[in-house]
Amino acid sequence: MTFHYPNGKRYIETKQTSSPVKRQDLKKWSYGKRGMTLEEDINQTNQYYLDKGIAVIHKKPTPVQIVNVDYPKRSAAVIKEAYFKQASTTDYNGVYKGKYLDFEAKETKLPSSFPLKNFHEHQIDHMKKVLKQNGICFVVIRFSLTEEVFFLEAVHLLTFWDRMLNGGRKSITKEEIVANGYLIPLTIQPRIDFIKIINDIYPFHED
Amino acid sequence: MTFHYPNGKRYIETKQTSSPVKRQDLKKWSYGKRGMTLEEDINQTNQYYLDKGIAVIHKKPTPVQIVNVDYPKRSAAVIKEAYFKQASTTDYNGVYKGKYLDFEAKETKLPSSFPLKNFHEHQIDHMKKVLKQNGICFVVIRFSLTEEVFFLEAVHLLTFWDRMLNGGRKSITKEEIVANGYLIPLTIQPRIDFIKIINDIYPFHED
Repeated sequence: MTFHYPNGKRYIETKQTSSPVKRQDLKKWSYGKRGMTLEEDINQTNQYYLDKGIAVIHKKPTPVQIVNVDYPKRSAAVIKEAYFKQASTTDYNGVYKGKYLDFEAKETKLPSSFPLKNFHEHQIDHMKKVLKQNGICFVVIRFSLTEEVFFLEAVHLLTFWDRMLNGGRKSITKEEIVANGYLIPLTIQPRIDFIKIINDIYPFHED
Repeated sequence: MTFHYPNGKRYIETKQTSSPVKRQDLKKWSYGKRGMTLEEDINQTNQYYLDKGIAVIHKKPTPVQIVNVDYPKRSAAVIKEAYFKQASTTDYNGVYKGKYLDFEAKETKLPSSFPLKNFHEHQIDHMKKVLKQNGICFVVIRFSLTEEVFFLEAVHLLTFWDRMLNGGRKSITKEEIVANGYLIPLTIQPRIDFIKIINDIYPFHED
């Protein structure tokens, strides 16, 4: 599949700051140059939120089944045999203004649809449980060709998932994501400002 | 250090249920017989909350720095070299009625005080950040000799931590935990019902 896009670069919104951003600094933030993954962008965004006291969100460690550990004298324990385990939850969770946030971030190279196989059934189950507990649950979806990043509430993802289970298409079309989700502004700091979307769509009151 | 306790068994509060609990079933739940750890008890409690739709709380996987992975043909990837990393958060978090919950569970064999070295500085920092975000943050402390389990809000832990930083004692006395915390009822299902304490001390309103 070929998809032609002007120059493979993403548009970077430059914020007006007191010290202007230098050209080589901007380069650092370009996906095209660095091959920055969505995960790296989300992690840097979460770090920004953490540093600024905006939200406390962490990526969960990769779950690993540890089988054999060596404890050499005078040095750190070495895990000699371990296996990757399937995660039973989404990758990210945390707290924002007292509310529980929970999300998964996935990207696709396809131009016009997002395959649902990017999610596992137990992640879907987890999202359902979080929604029942009144948590804020969503997915961050990146179309890497156009470098557009969308915020899609889990409730919509679940609808598309059910459509698949009922024999429907195994993906969400980009049009459906545009119609049901929100384009997340890409800025330098934070990189993927999903809290801005949350502020727009969820009512917050002081507890 | 010796500490004499009548029979080394914990008192088990038996709930009146339609089918009475058999003696051999009770045995299964006895710490004394099985050497059940606090972590196992908390995990089973969280599983109970999950199964009953009461709350969604998970233990975070142990953070591991993976250095070398073998990908044998026709079988699962094997991690051949990895190291334990220091966690930057507490072990447990999740959602209850929309609110973010965050806690750490620790036990001591000492009879009358709880050493603060059970916590790491970055866990304390994390708790501070969670409290600033209005999350519900606490520690579950078990005195293994008496098998008493206490719920202590993080705000109190932070006070004792600061006292230590200011040259005070390096532990919390059991009296202080009794005075500032809550004894968690130990039941068969769930084992350590900390949600009951949360219901008692935090105001919840429907969002």
